[in-house]
Amino acid sequence: MHMRTVRVAIAGFGGVGLATASLLLSRRARYREVHGVDIRLVAVCGSRAGLHDDRGLEEHQLGALEDGLSGPSFLEASGADLLIEAGPSDFRTGGPGLGYIRSALAAGRDTIVISKGALVHSGEELRQLAKRSGALMKLSGAAAAALPTIDLVDHSLKGCTVLEVEGILNATTNYLLDAMMTRGIGFDAALREAQLGGFAEADPRNDTEGWDTACKLLILANFGLYANLTMADLAVEGIQAVTSERIEAWRRKGLVPKLVGSLARTDGTFRASVGIRTYPLADPFANIRGKDKAIRIVTDAMGETIAIGSGKEPLATAAAALKDLEHILTVRAASHRAEQRASQ
Amino acid sequence: MHMRTVRVAIAGFGGVGLATASLLLSRRARYREVHGVDIRLVAVCGSRAGLHDDRGLEEHQLGALEDGLSGPSFLEASGADLLIEAGPSDFRTGGPGLGYIRSALAAGRDTIVISKGALVHSGEELRQLAKRSGALMKLSGAAAAALPTIDLVDHSLKGCTVLEVEGILNATTNYLLDAMMTRGIGFDAALREAQLGGFAEADPRNDTEGWDTACKLLILANFGLYANLTMADLAVEGIQAVTSERIEAWRRKGLVPKLVGSLARTDGTFRASVGIRTYPLADPFANIRGKDKAIRIVTDAMGETIAIGSGKEPLATAAAALKDLEHILTVRAASHRAEQRASQ
Repeated sequence: MHMRTVRVAIAGFGGVGLATASLLLSRRARYREVHGVDIRLVAVCGSRAGLHDDRGLEEHQLGALEDGLSGPSFLEASGADLLIEAGPSDFRTGGPGLGYIRSALAAGRDTIVISKGALVHSGEELRQLAKRSGALMKLSGAAAAALPTIDLVDHSLKGCTVLEVEGILNATTNYLLDAMMTRGIGFDAALREAQLGGFAEADPRNDTEGWDTACKLLILANFGLYANLTMADLAVEGIQAVTSERIEAWRRKGLVPKLVGSLARTDGTFRASVGIRTYPLADPFANIRGKDKAIRIVTDAMGETIAIGSGKEPLATAAAALKDLEHILTVRAASHRAEQRASQ
Repeated sequence: MHMRTVRVAIAGFGGVGLATASLLLSRRARYREVHGVDIRLVAVCGSRAGLHDDRGLEEHQLGALEDGLSGPSFLEASGADLLIEAGPSDFRTGGPGLGYIRSALAAGRDTIVISKGALVHSGEELRQLAKRSGALMKLSGAAAAALPTIDLVDHSLKGCTVLEVEGILNATTNYLLDAMMTRGIGFDAALREAQLGGFAEADPRNDTEGWDTACKLLILANFGLYANLTMADLAVEGIQAVTSERIEAWRRKGLVPKLVGSLARTDGTFRASVGIRTYPLADPFANIRGKDKAIRIVTDAMGETIAIGSGKEPLATAAAALKDLEHILTVRAASHRAEQRASQ
């Protein structure tokens, strides 16, 4: 049997884009064996430079990009069948990812989205674009990466009505609160430590003020629960104002504070917010340490389901995006087989 | 558009079978809206009695079964397209479910298995039967019910290599150990309490000696990880010999005992066992209370993923089986659409 070739392009080539490319290349034998497809990485690009090779790029080429090879039209010309978007996230503008995703979906190309900005800014438009062109859009990497969130709602809890969701979705704030609680250091000291360790940004407000949590919550709500919320519908609070006195008061009561994104369904509509909640020590949420993440989903028929994830970045996010790839390959292979049967 | 009808039969009509029937009937509008199919419950049966109505059974009929309507040939004659098997589990013989499942799969009927016995006893034979006939066999209900286990491996962690699994998979033993640890009562007192509460059997050895955990572990290993194990490959220990002295010693060390099924991959093969492991208080496993269940899966690319489930029985198990139903409907609808497109 002739093996189908699937040509993949990656837009956004920082740590996550590179990790995704490497993991993709390392799994080519698996894709042939499990899915019967020859996966070829035909193009990658960052904001100013990229690479293109129709015969497929190899790992050793990925370190040296060529200036000028970038932008949606560069990827369009690469002949890719499938886009993985891994650029920087900006929910106020949609970020550079928006242009790449629009162009791929409009052309009917299956698209895997890792960055959150475009999905928060223009999620409904992108969903409609995909629907019209028949392209599949998957976004596990944008909805808390290796932690299963949309997966749970879409697959593991399928058929149940989701009543409530709460999630520890941001690693940086969880690390900061954890350091403040367990080691008694203040917010500023914990933040400096995280910045030196490379897991808090120089401008940390996107994490500390709750926006990153809000973005993930909104993506879960809109793409997992069809809630149709915008950022303006969310009450968003961060952890930047947490004092040592509040930390001490929680500790005395045996409570552990977490920055949590939450959704509750009332009369068929969802209310969403981001803020601090506290948990007793016996609650699994109290024991989510360091850079781990967690989600609790309450449904009508399956009660409470909790997932906790602790994958290392950027590998875990790359693996989440490539999980989406396999789900796409499975759907496409089933259609392909059915078409072949029907045409015989 | 003409709506397809899917005729469902349920074999095994105790608490879980009845809960599955009720939940199925209550979701008929959903099946029409989401999947575009008219779901009809055409037959149910227990070991000696059943009901059949080609126009579809309604909730109010389910309380009064007719003697003599039972057995694989009764269900064959009912015209069902899909079987849900919910009978008693017996891994030493395959139980009554084995005959129903064999007959359905051989005839190419998609089958949802809830009881564990047939899958442990004749799993490979059933898998081959399904493969030959093109039937789908799903078994979420048999692999720890509402707790996602095979789902995680198959879907949420897709593409990753599973290195280790450990699970608190049996509610009865978790309840007993929890009662012994938190209330200082002995094994016999805890067991009597559980029996009076209706969540331990009169003969509790299937749970307390670890066999139920072993069955679920084996099903996860063989159907989720293609491990090809038999019960003889497992070292199985239970909790029946746990003394108050051991409980007290663990408590002094700040450890919590759990009956755990575990798998570890070494050189490509899995080693499996069931026995007591202890966890420090900050480990999520230490806080799995009462009748809750949990699983921890370690993969190469996504690190550690934990799921915790606390659905109420028998509803949660019914919901797990009907999750399988929706996955089957999704696959069948995709094939159906592709065939229609190809034949146009």
